Amino acid sequence: MSTQPNHQHHLLAQWVSQYRAATKEGQCANYIPALAKKDPNQLAVAIVGTEGHEIKAGDTEELFTLQSVSKVITFILACMDRGLPYVLERVDVEPTGDTFNSIIRLESHQPGKPFNPMINAGAITVSSMLAGHSPQEKVTKILQFLEQIIGKQLSINEEVFQSEWQTANRNRALAYYLMDSGFLDCPVEAALEVYLKQCAIEVNVSDLAMIGLVIANDGYHPLLKKQLFPKQVAKLAKALMVTCGMYNASGKFAAFIGLPAKSGVSGAILAAVPGHAGLHSPFPTGCGIGIYGPAIDPIGNSVAGVQLLKQLATEWDMTIF
Amino acid sequence: MSTQPNHQHHLLAQWVSQYRAATKEGQCANYIPALAKKDPNQLAVAIVGTEGHEIKAGDTEELFTLQSVSKVITFILACMDRGLPYVLERVDVEPTGDTFNSIIRLESHQPGKPFNPMINAGAITVSSMLAGHSPQEKVTKILQFLEQIIGKQLSINEEVFQSEWQTANRNRALAYYLMDSGFLDCPVEAALEVYLKQCAIEVNVSDLAMIGLVIANDGYHPLLKKQLFPKQVAKLAKALMVTCGMYNASGKFAAFIGLPAKSGVSGAILAAVPGHAGLHSPFPTGCGIGIYGPAIDPIGNSVAGVQLLKQLATEWDMTIF
Amino acid sequence: MSTQPNHQHHLLAQWVSQYRAATKEGQCANYIPALAKKDPNQLAVAIVGTEGHEIKAGDTEELFTLQSVSKVITFILACMDRGLPYVLERVDVEPTGDTFNSIIRLESHQPGKPFNPMINAGAITVSSMLAGHSPQEKVTKILQFLEQIIGKQLSINEEVFQSEWQTANRNRALAYYLMDSGFLDCPVEAALEVYLKQCAIEVNVSDLAMIGLVIANDGYHPLLKKQLFPKQVAKLAKALMVTCGMYNASGKFAAFIGLPAKSGVSGAILAAVPGHAGLHSPFPTGCGIGIYGPAIDPIGNSVAGVQLLKQLATEWDMTIF
Amino acid sequence: MSTQPNHQHHLLAQWVSQYRAATKEGQCANYIPALAKKDPNQLAVAIVGTEGHEIKAGDTEELFTLQSVSKVITFILACMDRGLPYVLERVDVEPTGDTFNSIIRLESHQPGKPFNPMINAGAITVSSMLAGHSPQEKVTKILQFLEQIIGKQLSINEEVFQSEWQTANRNRALAYYLMDSGFLDCPVEAALEVYLKQCAIEVNVSDLAMIGLVIANDGYHPLLKKQLFPKQVAKLAKALMVTCGMYNASGKFAAFIGLPAKSGVSGAILAAVPGHAGLHSPFPTGCGIGIYGPAIDPIGNSVAGVQLLKQLATEWDMTIF
Repeated sequence: MSTQPNHQHHLLAQWVSQYRAATKEGQCANYIPALAKKDPNQLAVAIVGTEGHEIKAGDTEELFTLQSVSKVITFILACMDRGLPYVLERVDVEPTGDTFNSIIRLESHQPGKPFNPMINAGAITVSSMLAGHSPQEKVTKILQFLEQIIGKQLSINEEVFQSEWQTANRNRALAYYLMDSGFLDCPVEAALEVYLKQCAIEVNVSDLAMIGLVIANDGYHPLLKKQLFPKQVAKLAKALMVTCGMYNASGKFAAFIGLPAKSGVSGAILAAVPGHAGLHSPFPTGCGIGIYGPAIDPIGNSVAGVQLLKQLATEWDMTIF
Repeated sequence: MSTQPNHQHHLLAQWVSQYRAATKEGQCANYIPALAKKDPNQLAVAIVGTEGHEIKAGDTEELFTLQSVSKVITFILACMDRGLPYVLERVDVEPTGDTFNSIIRLESHQPGKPFNPMINAGAITVSSMLAGHSPQEKVTKILQFLEQIIGKQLSINEEVFQSEWQTANRNRALAYYLMDSGFLDCPVEAALEVYLKQCAIEVNVSDLAMIGLVIANDGYHPLLKKQLFPKQVAKLAKALMVTCGMYNASGKFAAFIGLPAKSGVSGAILAAVPGHAGLHSPFPTGCGIGIYGPAIDPIGNSVAGVQLLKQLATEWDMTIF
Repeated sequence: MSTQPNHQHHLLAQWVSQYRAATKEGQCANYIPALAKKDPNQLAVAIVGTEGHEIKAGDTEELFTLQSVSKVITFILACMDRGLPYVLERVDVEPTGDTFNSIIRLESHQPGKPFNPMINAGAITVSSMLAGHSPQEKVTKILQFLEQIIGKQLSINEEVFQSEWQTANRNRALAYYLMDSGFLDCPVEAALEVYLKQCAIEVNVSDLAMIGLVIANDGYHPLLKKQLFPKQVAKLAKALMVTCGMYNASGKFAAFIGLPAKSGVSGAILAAVPGHAGLHSPFPTGCGIGIYGPAIDPIGNSVAGVQLLKQLATEWDMTIF
Repeated sequence: MSTQPNHQHHLLAQWVSQYRAATKEGQCANYIPALAKKDPNQLAVAIVGTEGHEIKAGDTEELFTLQSVSKVITFILACMDRGLPYVLERVDVEPTGDTFNSIIRLESHQPGKPFNPMINAGAITVSSMLAGHSPQEKVTKILQFLEQIIGKQLSINEEVFQSEWQTANRNRALAYYLMDSGFLDCPVEAALEVYLKQCAIEVNVSDLAMIGLVIANDGYHPLLKKQLFPKQVAKLAKALMVTCGMYNASGKFAAFIGLPAKSGVSGAILAAVPGHAGLHSPFPTGCGIGIYGPAIDPIGNSVAGVQLLKQLATEWDMTIF
């Protein structure tokens, strides 16, 4: 709290510069051609507080796709559209320790209900539940929800969407398996279209930070002064981010960083710091954090991004534990 | 905070009385003869704050064994004895979604390192690492550590220990598998003796609450005014309690209750409420909670205990999220 | 051998009558609407020897679809079209003990090569390898091959094909998974069309018996006096029928009946009795057996069919062991 | 048949000399110190026919331990001691495709019944069932049974037994798991003592061949002119050897060699050629084959032994298919 904004900004820039070296330890997601082309050396961070004050550093203008970060958003939307009991009947909220695209538990744990909404199987199920009679209607709902939060219209990166759509065989396998088990609420191709389009929504780190801020504030948008989604859903989303948000490194992330966060293979990380978790930080009433670093580790998390976030959390004493 | 201590005490007694009905939905652990004899209708809770004030209700004099709650304690001790890197080389900190006694991942995920210290495989590994040249030395260390926290000497329920020792075939299978993979630091029978003796340590709910208080306070004992274990270890313990503490219902517990907690098949639950998670509660500087309700669900958690804890967390707005 | 043909025929009729009672222990496959409509009380058997002599009993005029029995035929064809090394590079020949539609091993045993051609994953892979630039060309090849063996043109039951095509979600999941792992030789929908059309080819028990005869004779058609496929491929097909032919009851079938056989969920069973396995039977130079009994057990095998085949094998001392 | 005995003997010597080169592709089992010391270049074969005529070549005087080959013998004995229904209630006869020491299916397929007697879990269960009130009594029964077959007393290699006993952690894990599930008929340590002693019984290739001969002849000893065990048990043993006898290469062995066989990590292979499977061979009334080649592949089968057996089977047209 004693840290001056300028000083914070300076620190942030210094850390970005320091952790940019770590980008060399990872590489851009290579199974999606459009992601493989990104510059692996990039790193960016933005933090926005409850009064709208933002600090940022690095490649903050860079646009990137949400990928798995979108899973948090559609989970919140599905809870609003269908109510919590309906959603929880179709997707559990237990962590697994499995890779994001694993299909084994759908068969090994009958009745094949996906274990949580943060792995692909659960996320596709969630996307199928969104209100709307067509993929387009569902996607429009997602974009409108994000526009409410961020205050500007986002768009879908068509090249990324097409690239993923062409290579979505594993996700198709998951979706057909879910359809066979009765867990999809709309046809397979429609669910996949929604899921892959939500993954291809383009943002920058400031946009991510703003989403994180509203989640941190239990669904209340501190600038709009408006409750956008129920507190209970926000708490649940944060719990899921902690137990399952960082793929099968979620346990280690909770252990060593201790913040609700969700990563994507684009190198995006969204973190939500509730006020009480940031009491002794420069953001004592909470903040949202957006990070981008496209060089990812084999598990799918931004290498430099995770290290930068650990630095922030440690130095500024931000933790929910 | 506006709630008067007397009023809180009254409320607590009322809730215990209300949730005692839920004990009928579970039953005492029947695979351990000594546990099967317990009175399934019992329910007790104790809460202790940073200034030593305690409120409690129900069968608070009842003694019960720690069972899996002891896993948190030995994990903390192992980290103190061996250092974090040594411990983490032998046991991971990832949640699994598997049952507590599952053996599958030891084979399916090479090199067979146990996924976390809260499942039996991980806990046995941790017990094998404790300082001490004999099981007795290791157990003595555990008892001394607990005496420091609680302020009185605890003892081992010999009947429970003998009962579990005789029926420990599944745990022996886990231990021999771990030995084969090179993850045990002492002979199988020694590791099992430590593990089963720590499980048979007898406490009441006030004792549990005091352990929870020190963990809540990051290892600092607010009454002794002494740091008993490093803050980093305490944070890690709380993260593990959130991601893996309630067996394969940990995800749901985090989602709907949102507190670091660890359960045992004796019906014990230990919860640690950090100050920031209880800011708007009657314990604004944090507290420890001990619960006992021996009627457990098929997953291993006290049925009435979980419901009572949910009531407390909800009514008093205690959550880390 | 001493048994007179008339006597054999009489015995066969008597056994069919006796084992028809066992049809009550099973039920028609209910996940395929067109199969669910079949009369569960039906039972039929035909046996054809190397000199073309046939004995048969029961509902021998009934037409039914090949279903999984077709997997043997396409495996033989793929070996002829591509050569054994090519085929074995894409599908292994190991039994699994898993259900026919299991997907787990594709993920748990890298590189995800299907374990054998008798489970769906392996059979779809095999169908994708058949010569032909379109599904129609591949299917035509299968029908021509069968026409050569049986001496008449078979046709595809369009209703069954459409029924399975509409409900093929689990098979689609398998196929997309295989495509993702690089094991399919043609597009998913093409491979599925071939696979589901081969499953829908209609035969009667005499047709099945004739196919069995040629396999029994190592690919040599004793009536046409012509080698239709290589001896090595026939031996391999018989080995696969023994180790994997009766779904996850193959081990028990080998143990208690001891003949190369392949079943389908339509209630079809194809058995091939090499000469040496029938030395002391009424067919001392070998025979083919076709059985039909649409009431199947939970594993997928005709309940009465298996019992009838066991009676035949035991009474007539037919076994490869 | 036209082949003269001398010529056969000459051929055999030539093949042994030829395939000895293949020993370089494997290595001696290194997890058992006493096996690791064996000479990896050794190779030996013996074949004995129904009239007692034997041909052999290579290191035929070398003694080696039965290891997993003993599983066939104890399975036959258990069936004699307890009756088939009793045995089959405790161990299934389905192949798995898993490694010999896998524990996963005991948990993943409830009720945890071992899948077949040829994997360690099943074999330990079988050993626990043998008649006898002590390990020594059970082992004595095994040795007496073998003495009846071979005509001489065999002994246990104490060094190998001790070596395996010290390092049997994985087998202990299996045994304790089985005990926990209720599948063991005697205490864990007793079952393991029997199992590891039977594995350490010492034979040479002629001994193995004689065991194979009796199994080939459906339990009838052609020299003693005596039925040593029931025909049905012999058929079942041969079926198990075909579906599960060569570890998780059993499918390929059946496909390309096509004889009932059982291997051990000592490099032993026992094969049983029923008369009808050798009709066109130099042993038209059947034979037993014993092979020894201690350099094994990663799956556990003698590298040169399998190739030599393939040569024999192919050249002499021996196959059950």
